[in-house]
Amino acid sequence: MHPTELVLSPRLRKTAFEDRVFELGIQSFTIYNHMTLPVAFSSNPESYQHLCEHVQVWDVAAERQVEVVGPDALALLELITPRDISTCDVGQCVYAPLADQDGLVINDPLILRLREDRFWISIADSDVLLWVKGIAYGRDFNVKVFEPDVSPLAVQGPKANDLMADLLDDSVRDIKFFRFIEAEIAGTPVVLARSGWSGQGGFEIYLQNSADGLVLWDAVWKAGEPYNVKIGSPNLIERLETGLKSYGSDMTLDDHVLECGFEKYLNLDKTAEYMSRESIERLQKSGIKRRLCHVMAKADPLPGLRERWQVNAGGKMVGQASSCAWSPKFEANLMFAMLSTEVSEPGSVVTVMVNGAEVDGIVCDDRWKY
Amino acid sequence: MHPTELVLSPRLRKTAFEDRVFELGIQSFTIYNHMTLPVAFSSNPESYQHLCEHVQVWDVAAERQVEVVGPDALALLELITPRDISTCDVGQCVYAPLADQDGLVINDPLILRLREDRFWISIADSDVLLWVKGIAYGRDFNVKVFEPDVSPLAVQGPKANDLMADLLDDSVRDIKFFRFIEAEIAGTPVVLARSGWSGQGGFEIYLQNSADGLVLWDAVWKAGEPYNVKIGSPNLIERLETGLKSYGSDMTLDDHVLECGFEKYLNLDKTAEYMSRESIERLQKSGIKRRLCHVMAKADPLPGLRERWQVNAGGKMVGQASSCAWSPKFEANLMFAMLSTEVSEPGSVVTVMVNGAEVDGIVCDDRWKY
Repeated sequence: MHPTELVLSPRLRKTAFEDRVFELGIQSFTIYNHMTLPVAFSSNPESYQHLCEHVQVWDVAAERQVEVVGPDALALLELITPRDISTCDVGQCVYAPLADQDGLVINDPLILRLREDRFWISIADSDVLLWVKGIAYGRDFNVKVFEPDVSPLAVQGPKANDLMADLLDDSVRDIKFFRFIEAEIAGTPVVLARSGWSGQGGFEIYLQNSADGLVLWDAVWKAGEPYNVKIGSPNLIERLETGLKSYGSDMTLDDHVLECGFEKYLNLDKTAEYMSRESIERLQKSGIKRRLCHVMAKADPLPGLRERWQVNAGGKMVGQASSCAWSPKFEANLMFAMLSTEVSEPGSVVTVMVNGAEVDGIVCDDRWKY
Repeated sequence: MHPTELVLSPRLRKTAFEDRVFELGIQSFTIYNHMTLPVAFSSNPESYQHLCEHVQVWDVAAERQVEVVGPDALALLELITPRDISTCDVGQCVYAPLADQDGLVINDPLILRLREDRFWISIADSDVLLWVKGIAYGRDFNVKVFEPDVSPLAVQGPKANDLMADLLDDSVRDIKFFRFIEAEIAGTPVVLARSGWSGQGGFEIYLQNSADGLVLWDAVWKAGEPYNVKIGSPNLIERLETGLKSYGSDMTLDDHVLECGFEKYLNLDKTAEYMSRESIERLQKSGIKRRLCHVMAKADPLPGLRERWQVNAGGKMVGQASSCAWSPKFEANLMFAMLSTEVSEPGSVVTVMVNGAEVDGIVCDDRWKY
């Protein structure tokens, strides 16, 4: 791909940790929720290996929060997702795809329940704030909806437990997956969750005052020194291996929630009203025509995608690939692709069109088996 | 500022014109509405001079459209802006700030009326699609709201008339300001509007099939050759001189529509229901406490802003500057700044804190007079 320069301006919001990111030599960014998201060695096999063996600190402040608080907060949250939110405990987070009245995916956030009537929607890259504010206004819900001054800092990798235990105390080892506590680090209040956008385990520390960003970063960094801490970022190689889809790339507002492999996260029979119910029931009856799949290509490492690659089978187009990385673990290129259900079963053979070249691929299950 | 690299991926959508932009040697971008927006010589005085004397072509496909169509389209548009939309003719565009129930600015789009019941909201950088979809759902409006495959290409500068007359015919010279026609260029249907994000005059060509992007670009470029056409982009210097504010930089969801200098674009007494009415009436009574101002600093050219600069007066903070460029015309740095009304009158003296240095500034009116 062409070399590119990102022209920074106040519209592309600076994160609470950005000064440290630059000081550590990182110069590559993407933009996510109108904010910089550093891309630190994302497709570098050494950084991937380091993430799998040690611990990394990631500036993921661009995972913005939408706070919903008030008497109707639960009803509003229930309305916008086919997942049952009523069973989410205070102190728990759930992965809850948001779907509109046509079942189309608005975003795929984590939802954190801070109190019975207070939630954070921890979002991927779309203005969920406007979506939720619009519905709240239109339905006259008694809630307040806003973006709080909250900036997640991720600590990911197998040594994250050790780092965090040194920084706080051993009790953090007992925080269960997708549970969180309120704590204080370096004098600033944080929400500390066992979560993060990798399969390597770790924490997300939700800073609640961006003025304390560098103090928090420094405290975490110092605690990580005995554990060979390095800066990282959501890792392209690791997320492909782990199967983590990216909203805006792998699924968009053009895709139905049933097409995206979200079934296990949904509670379609929940009693609460939700806006996508009719659409989902209709599509369940008629059957989906395409599905977000895993595709493996045992070729030399492929280049990065600027736009989606066409996928063919039997001489006709059957879909598009949206993410790709070369995996050291599988010694193959791994891709996500929205494919016709004709070819979505593991073992199906497809051809991916990569900048004019034909690359053979095989459809896999969620664990890259075929 | 630090050098930065933008890491491209399908999530940062490719424009219909991007291949030509790269071929012309442009490598600098910002991200706008989840899409690349080329930044071509934006703060280069020569490009500014060229824009003021000749004609430029700009890839502004990132100015996405939100289409609202159906029996309740007008009522919905009226609801979301304090501007009167009922008086907008078919074939006309109006600048219509969108404000929520607290009067806060959601976006500052152009609205194009394509038919009595069909509109395009031509947006600045926020997901107005989600905002309008949310309200339409919540209020059960009978409309369809979606992002059509529409990509604006801007032709800006004093020779834009000549270029466009050669490309179509002399009748385009008669298109009035903020009026549009439907036409065909290089075999592809377009909406051709006399509009654009500069004060130099020109057109925006709304491509309606992104597959025809390069064909359209080439036709426009060829017609521009006799007129010394060059590639450009929304120009930082020119927009400061002309007074064009940028949503996300100069005003955000934290700012009230009355604070942003929008009064002349509003029809606060319109008969239609609009959601910001109460908030606006309340603030009119109590009076605004701050206002988006023009500030001139007769210093050497200042560096680019990564984040807002603090503005002081009388030893205390009175606001923040959000955009800055050195103007050849005024031989001074021009800034936009949200300032306390204590210092918002032309002639007020302020101090701008630029990376630790104090820079003297003077508040000006909208035409840079004080």
